[in-house]
Amino acid sequence: MREPASGTDISVDVAVIGGGVVGHAIAWEAARSGRSVALVDDAPGCGASWAAAGMLAPVSELHYQEEDLLELMLEASSLWPEFAAGLAPDVDRTDEAAETAAGTGYITTPTLAIGVDPADRRALDDLRRVQAANGLSVEQLTVREARSIEPLLSPGVSCAYRIAADHQVDPRRLLARIAAALVNAERAGGTCKMIPARASGLQWESDRVAGVVLDNGIAIHAGETVLANGLGTGNLNGLPPGLNLPLRPVYGDIIRLRVPAHLQPLLSSTVRGLVHGVPVYIVPRDDGTVVIGATQREVALEEDAAEAVSAGGIYQLLRDAQALLPAVAELELLECTARGRPGTPDNAPLLGRVQDRTGDSDVLGLIVATGFFRHGILLAPAAASICLQLMEGRSDPRWAVFQPGRFSPGFSASHIPRHPDPATAATPLCSKEQHEYHP
Amino acid sequence: MREPASGTDISVDVAVIGGGVVGHAIAWEAARSGRSVALVDDAPGCGASWAAAGMLAPVSELHYQEEDLLELMLEASSLWPEFAAGLAPDVDRTDEAAETAAGTGYITTPTLAIGVDPADRRALDDLRRVQAANGLSVEQLTVREARSIEPLLSPGVSCAYRIAADHQVDPRRLLARIAAALVNAERAGGTCKMIPARASGLQWESDRVAGVVLDNGIAIHAGETVLANGLGTGNLNGLPPGLNLPLRPVYGDIIRLRVPAHLQPLLSSTVRGLVHGVPVYIVPRDDGTVVIGATQREVALEEDAAEAVSAGGIYQLLRDAQALLPAVAELELLECTARGRPGTPDNAPLLGRVQDRTGDSDVLGLIVATGFFRHGILLAPAAASICLQLMEGRSDPRWAVFQPGRFSPGFSASHIPRHPDPATAATPLCSKEQHEYHP
Repeated sequence: MREPASGTDISVDVAVIGGGVVGHAIAWEAARSGRSVALVDDAPGCGASWAAAGMLAPVSELHYQEEDLLELMLEASSLWPEFAAGLAPDVDRTDEAAETAAGTGYITTPTLAIGVDPADRRALDDLRRVQAANGLSVEQLTVREARSIEPLLSPGVSCAYRIAADHQVDPRRLLARIAAALVNAERAGGTCKMIPARASGLQWESDRVAGVVLDNGIAIHAGETVLANGLGTGNLNGLPPGLNLPLRPVYGDIIRLRVPAHLQPLLSSTVRGLVHGVPVYIVPRDDGTVVIGATQREVALEEDAAEAVSAGGIYQLLRDAQALLPAVAELELLECTARGRPGTPDNAPLLGRVQDRTGDSDVLGLIVATGFFRHGILLAPAAASICLQLMEGRSDPRWAVFQPGRFSPGFSASHIPRHPDPATAATPLCSKEQHEYHP
Repeated sequence: MREPASGTDISVDVAVIGGGVVGHAIAWEAARSGRSVALVDDAPGCGASWAAAGMLAPVSELHYQEEDLLELMLEASSLWPEFAAGLAPDVDRTDEAAETAAGTGYITTPTLAIGVDPADRRALDDLRRVQAANGLSVEQLTVREARSIEPLLSPGVSCAYRIAADHQVDPRRLLARIAAALVNAERAGGTCKMIPARASGLQWESDRVAGVVLDNGIAIHAGETVLANGLGTGNLNGLPPGLNLPLRPVYGDIIRLRVPAHLQPLLSSTVRGLVHGVPVYIVPRDDGTVVIGATQREVALEEDAAEAVSAGGIYQLLRDAQALLPAVAELELLECTARGRPGTPDNAPLLGRVQDRTGDSDVLGLIVATGFFRHGILLAPAAASICLQLMEGRSDPRWAVFQPGRFSPGFSASHIPRHPDPATAATPLCSKEQHEYHP
């Protein structure tokens, strides 16, 4: 590890590595608890958060065999109203923070799940039964009812469900809003320094993590270091020996479009479609734009082209969105974006402290919060809340299943899934279509 | 007209209004004839030239009833080799101009015309007979032969023709190359000032045009003023009274893609397809990118959104390009662009001097060069050559049909089409499919 340029070193209570939505949310939660925070990122908000559509959809995103994740998603969903309210600009002030905050774009309009062909209908009906079995509320609509709610829906759709609990936020506005709040963190009782650099490795003091060294040689001394830098997390130097963070990029293409005046509002609900077996969603923003996503590709178009947009992906999105909503053809294409999401082997985050190899205690000073895959925006308030609890010496046994050492032999003996083993349990609700819908 | 700020006025031999490829070519031709030139544009190269694919395709672009235009296109095509060679950087020099000039991207590889379904085959066969009747060389290939030339062509295509005379250039590199040559115009014997402003109106001295006033109040005194600003031409103040320049925007969407290393070269020929009656073309550049175009829309997506990209247009291009070349799905989408091309009622340019209303003489000091529609890049060297002839007091009777006053009652008695009147002539080669191919 490089010798830090000690004259410019920084000391804080909490160093958060990674300035996506999750990193920002953790920094904000720590700062408003009264802590001094440093948020380290050389390109804040430019990773997976930049591409995210911002659906807050615990019900729609329920995937078979992911009940633990469902519990975390529902927890996050319950935190969202207060989290968004806490970021609302102070109306008594007219300073920059208030100016920046046109709000986070948090909207609680419902989601419509729409199927196109009979197989899509069967898949969504199967999913609805899984959702109902998990106590989630999904209301079946007739196609006529759906079209009276959303008149521009194609007459060719085969089924519709209304999901009141699935909402949305605008990740870019959210990020700008948290960043603005962090600038004024003193008002919340803490402080936050934005450090535009890249973390190169962890600093250790005997057996605890004591901060991070940046690629410019500066060291940040921190009581707690939180690794929230998505796909980059596994590349840090100085991780606990033997800790395996099996993150892989799952690439997604997404497009942003502007709705011409004569077509506004295009939609009032978020529409999640299943179009001949392929998922697509259309998220209407309150600024007259819509976001259409998202493909899932495990392979980049080419090595070293992680942010390359797939022509085939954009074609698929436009094709399938038009099957749900023919007027998509009349929109203005503003932007095509692709990013890699940090996927994990079980699609759940790596979230918590790292047990040392004896399994008796945790590595002090270190918290991992990465691998949020498709759920980073939804889970951000929960990740922030869980990280703060850990900083306060508390931990919630419900989230032990997400401990970051669970894929590292010898690190974690406590990863016992609470749902039945798929190979042995009766799985009456699992259908092939579901599996296809949730690859 | 505003009073010019005479202290900063400029005097030149030639003022060219409009810095697209046509304006640049005219400025270059004038400068290398020894003239002093001012080229006026507040955003050079950002209009239709920015979107153009750069096909130099007199044969493929032959449209029924446009034989006059064919003659001009063939003239332009014959000028291209020398025009491009004249722009080649001076290899003995290592200065900026030579650096800038990675060349113009002028490539003389052939074009393949490809049809997908039986109706496309019939349409292309009809077109081939029209081309042959006009003395143009088109070689019919078997699909097998076409796929041996271009192995990535879809096995599903129905016919293929090889057109050796249709070439390509990269309009953005061309424009940069002409601009670099203009900076060093003294070497060619003239001078050129780039004026980053917008022309507001013509200046008159008695009955002749004596230059142009800019929107910043500065006047350019010029012996010849050339109007080459595309769709903006008709909006200039001080046009000859009664002169009607009926330009309308014909919008087009175009995409640029990067070919991953494992798919290079995607194509060696330019491919022009007819896919279930809809034209699409795929132009491979020598830098590993391809351009796919181009839609034609007469209506903007919304008022004041002339450069808005149509989501439906991009979808159509990706769909039809994949029908010709399935590997398009595996490319990286770099850019979606839309621009309005300056269309005219007869699809031919407004090119030449303006007759005064007596019909006996021309308005002195004024040359019009606009309305090049789909053909601006191909026709640029011819436009430049014709404009220089006019400046030298010469004129070629072949181009009288393009005189800019032909749509203005009283301006022009000489617009007698040399091809037969479609209502009365026998038109055995006109088929419905052709008409659909060339809307």
